[in-house]
Amino acid sequence: MAGAKKVISLRSSCKEEAIDITDLVNQVIKGSGIKEGICFLFVPHTTAALFVNEGYDPSVVKDILSSLSKLVPAEGNYAHLEGNSPAHIKSSLMGVSLLLPIEGGKLSLGRWQSVFFVEFDGPRQREVWAWLL
Amino acid sequence: MAGAKKVISLRSSCKEEAIDITDLVNQVIKGSGIKEGICFLFVPHTTAALFVNEGYDPSVVKDILSSLSKLVPAEGNYAHLEGNSPAHIKSSLMGVSLLLPIEGGKLSLGRWQSVFFVEFDGPRQREVWAWLL
Amino acid sequence: MAGAKKVISLRSSCKEEAIDITDLVNQVIKGSGIKEGICFLFVPHTTAALFVNEGYDPSVVKDILSSLSKLVPAEGNYAHLEGNSPAHIKSSLMGVSLLLPIEGGKLSLGRWQSVFFVEFDGPRQREVWAWLL
Repeated sequence: MAGAKKVISLRSSCKEEAIDITDLVNQVIKGSGIKEGICFLFVPHTTAALFVNEGYDPSVVKDILSSLSKLVPAEGNYAHLEGNSPAHIKSSLMGVSLLLPIEGGKLSLGRWQSVFFVEFDGPRQREVWAWLL
Repeated sequence: MAGAKKVISLRSSCKEEAIDITDLVNQVIKGSGIKEGICFLFVPHTTAALFVNEGYDPSVVKDILSSLSKLVPAEGNYAHLEGNSPAHIKSSLMGVSLLLPIEGGKLSLGRWQSVFFVEFDGPRQREVWAWLL
Repeated sequence: MAGAKKVISLRSSCKEEAIDITDLVNQVIKGSGIKEGICFLFVPHTTAALFVNEGYDPSVVKDILSSLSKLVPAEGNYAHLEGNSPAHIKSSLMGVSLLLPIEGGKLSLGRWQSVFFVEFDGPRQREVWAWLL
C-alpha cells in the first residue's frame, strides 16, 4: 500500500545545518507520476530530523537552529559518552517522521513553507526515505 | 488515494492562542460519511502549529503556551527582522502535520484529548487542511 | 482503509520512563502478515508521548529525559492544579502520533533507531494504538 521506497541522498557540510529538500522531494513526486496523494518522509538517523518552516528568508532557519542550541547546550552533564547527546535530544524534539500533502503533481505547501532536513551532528552522508501514497 | 482536500477556516483573535478544533474536524468527518479511517491534518502556515493534549481544563493549554514562551523568549538576539522569529521557532517545535485515527464516524481520541490549532503570531485568518484516508 | 485497530498495553513503572516498544510493534506487524506498508501509532493519553531515537546505549534516552526536565521544570508557576502540567507540556512537545515504515514484515528503521513510548506521569497502565496501512 505504501509503494516503493525512494531514497534521497544528502551530504551535510558542517556540524549543524538545515537543508531545504523541497525540490528534491518534488523531483521524486514528479518521477512517480502521482498527481494527488500524500508523501511520507522518514529519516533513518538518530542525530538528524525533519521540519517544515519558512524557506524564503534564511535567517528564520538560522534562528531555529540557534534557539535549539540555547535549549539544548553543547556542553552539559550528559550521560552518553560519544559527545553528541545534544544532537540526539534535538532530533527527538523535532522528529524524524513527516507527512505532507501532494496536489497537482507536487508538494502542496503554504506560501512560505519549505521542507527541511536538519543535521545536528555533521558533516555526514545522510538519507531521507520517501513513500508516496 | 488521499481524497479531496477539505479546508477548515479559522480566525485567531490574539497574538497566541490554542483553538480546540476537535468539533470542526469531526464535522468534516461526518460530512464525508467515512466511519473508519485516518485523518491527516496540515497547517499551511509557518507561525502556527497543531498538537493534541487535554481539552477539559483550559489551564493545561495555558501552561503549554506559557512554557513555550519561557523556552523561546519574545525578546532575543534573533536574525529574522520581522520580529516574529519566536513564532517560527515554536511552530517548528510543535509541528504542522498531524495524523489522527477515525472510528465510528469521528476522531478516535483518548478520554482527555482534544486537537488544537495553535496560533503564535495572530490575530490572523488561518486554514487547516484535512484529508480523510 | 486503516484496517483494524491493534492495542498495545503497557505498564510504566515510575514517574518518567522511556519504554522501547520496537519489538511489541514488530509483533503486531508479524501477526498481521503485512510485508510492506506503513504503521501508524497513536497514544491516547495527554501525559505520555512517542519518539524515535537511539535504543542501543540507554544513556541517550536518559539524556533526552533529563534535558526535557531542564526545559520544563517539575516546579513552576503552573495554572493547572493537578500538579502534572510538566507532563502535559512534555507530551505536547514530543507528540502522540507517529508514522513508521514497514519493510520485509517489520519496522524499517535506521541502524540505531528504536521506537519509544515515553511516560511523563507514571506509573500507570497505558495503551499505544496501532493501525497497519
